[in-house]
Order: sequence, then C-alpha cells, then structure tokens
Amino acid sequence: MVKRDRPTLTERRAEELRLEIARKAVEIFVADGDTSVTVDRIAEAAGVSPRTFHRHFPAKEDVVRPIFRLSSTQVITALRNAPTTGDVVETLVAAWVSQLHEGTLSDGERQFLKLMASTPQYRLRWMEVDDELSEAMAEFLRERVALGDHPLHRSLPAYLVVHATRHVFDYWILSDSSEDIADLLRDVFRTVLAGVEATRPVPTGDGG
Amino acid sequence: MVKRDRPTLTERRAEELRLEIARKAVEIFVADGDTSVTVDRIAEAAGVSPRTFHRHFPAKEDVVRPIFRLSSTQVITALRNAPTTGDVVETLVAAWVSQLHEGTLSDGERQFLKLMASTPQYRLRWMEVDDELSEAMAEFLRERVALGDHPLHRSLPAYLVVHATRHVFDYWILSDSSEDIADLLRDVFRTVLAGVEATRPVPTGDGG
Repeated sequence: MVKRDRPTLTERRAEELRLEIARKAVEIFVADGDTSVTVDRIAEAAGVSPRTFHRHFPAKEDVVRPIFRLSSTQVITALRNAPTTGDVVETLVAAWVSQLHEGTLSDGERQFLKLMASTPQYRLRWMEVDDELSEAMAEFLRERVALGDHPLHRSLPAYLVVHATRHVFDYWILSDSSEDIADLLRDVFRTVLAGVEATRPVPTGDGG
Repeated sequence: MVKRDRPTLTERRAEELRLEIARKAVEIFVADGDTSVTVDRIAEAAGVSPRTFHRHFPAKEDVVRPIFRLSSTQVITALRNAPTTGDVVETLVAAWVSQLHEGTLSDGERQFLKLMASTPQYRLRWMEVDDELSEAMAEFLRERVALGDHPLHRSLPAYLVVHATRHVFDYWILSDSSEDIADLLRDVFRTVLAGVEATRPVPTGDGG
C-alpha cells in the first residue's frame, strides 16, 4: 500500500488538490464544532464541484485522509533521515514533534483532532496511517536496537511504539491535557524500549 | 458500552439466538473459504427470516460480533477470577488460553480467523472487543503491578498488553505458524511488563 515510486506531476497535482479540499473541510469542521457539514458545502468552499469532490473522496469521511497522510509522511521522513547514532528515545520524540508547529497544537488543530478521535468513521481514517508508520518504525528500530531474528521480535517493538504514540495522543487530546507532548511521548517510548532491552535475545557473538 | 447489569431473560435469549446465527454464518464462511454468502442464505441456514437477521445484525458483517464478544467475555471472566498472587505473566497467558479448546485452534477456527484478519470490515468487528479487554486488563494490572498515579501510567500497560496480544494473533494466524500460542503470548507479555517494571515510578513509602 505504501507508494515508493516517485509520483508523477499529475499525481502530485491531484494530491495538492486533495490537500486543499481537506484543509477547507477541516476549517469548516472546526468552525462548526462538528462534522455535519454537507459535501456540497465543502466542495463549494474549496471551489470544486461535488462531482470532483467524490472523484477524489468516495465517502465524505475520506476527506481527512490527506491531512493524516501528510503528518505520517513527515514523521516517516524524519525517521528515515535520523542519524543512526544518538539516543533512540530522543530521536523518536524529535520525529514526532517535527510535524507539530513549535512542538504543540493550535486550538483549532486540537479541536479538529478531538472531533477525529471521538467520531468512529473519522477515527478510522486517522488510524489507517498506523500500518505505514509501523513499517517505517520497524526499519528505524532494526538499525538501532538489537531485536533478534524471530518475526515477532522484529515487528513487535515498532508496533508497540506506534500504538503507545496513539495512546498518548488519545490521552492528550481527549483529556485536554496541558502537559508537554514531548514529555509524554518520551515517557511511553522509554517504557516500550526498556521492555525490549530487558528481554532482548542474548547476542550470539556472530554479529547476528 | 460495557453492560454491567445482569441481562434479563429476553436479552439472554436474544443473545443466544444471535450466537446461533453467528455460528451458522461461520460454518458457511469456512465451508466456502470466503465471506461472500448472502444474508438470505445465512438466515435460511439458521432457520430465521432475513428480517429477523437484520433486526439483530443491521449490517451483514455484524453477524460475527457474538463470536468475538463471547471470546472476550471468557478472557475477562478469567482475568476477574484470577488470584491476586502468582506470576502475572503466567496468569495472563492462562486467561487467553482459557478460551481456546485445549490451548489451540481447530483448522476451521484458524481458517475463520484468517478470513476475519484479512477482511477489513470483519477485522473491525474483531477489533471492537479491544476497548472492553483493555478496561478489564487495566483492572487486572492495577491490583498486581505498581503503576503509579499518572493516567497514562495507569492505562498504558493494559493497552500495550491488549495490542501485543492482537499482534501475536495476527502473526500466528496470518503466517500459519505452528508455534505454541502460549509461548508467543508469554514472550510478548514479558516484554511489555519488563518495560513497565524497569520504568515504574519510585514507591513513595506511603503505600500509594
């Protein structure tokens, strides 16, 4: 499902248009305080026809996908470009915080994520990026942490890191916490990685 | 969403009927090797009208809910009845294995879960039980593990245990693994709980 090939100009333009429509939808969701706005009104605000809207977004709820895809792409890029030395937990925290403006959310962004977290059909679109993030996280961890050879040992830590992140965002957004998101992420990443380290396979001495 | 009150006789009978219809649907899914069977055929096999089917299951995919609800109820009951002393990891493994016949899956059950794991609309119905399991797991852990007072510290370990379980089942089912499910669960529970223990808050000495 992850596109590795360089997108064509047409694809890039289509993705830009989708992102523009998505941002209009988000503006309206936040202004209304709910997601009840019609496709017709979103399309009108974005300057496209309802038909164009539906060509890019089969269901109305699909309109938020470009927002979450952009965030996850930013995190994945930060992970891929991160140095292979240095503290793993701090590198992970930095990758997540890199997608936030000044390390935090604006009131509008928080209100938007609160709507997404509490509305099942939208929540699903948010959770869709978890698989892609898990894959990038697994690549990242394999280069930095002794994981062993069993498929579960190779995949579980990345999966736990991504789900711990999801849990932190849920807590932070739904409880209106004023705590520093970086501190919360640091805390849960430490828990997951301390468990991996404590139970890591004994090195065999052949470098494997 | 969790019903704590004792169900009435009518509710119990309705749930039994739903489970009977669900089991017929599972039989057909396994025999066909896919989930394409119509609601009419499931209803006929279960001896009910399509109208009765839809009264209990608004969407066709809802038909599998009673199966997953029964499994999760069995795990939750095992967790609630578990002694508060003894090895936490072994108690967790036993709770999960308690819902399997002789600690393993029959070929039919494995084939059914493979269909569920690989079909998004059914997978969602399976994942629905995770919230309820996380809640029961949190209760279980709070009585046995020093978790601290921060809401994230109180909720994260249970969430990670439930998601680690999901990851094990996904791996085990989708890779047709012949490994012992209890061994795989033991392994991931150890990883999660070792991390909780390594980063657990320093006891304050006031028993809190």
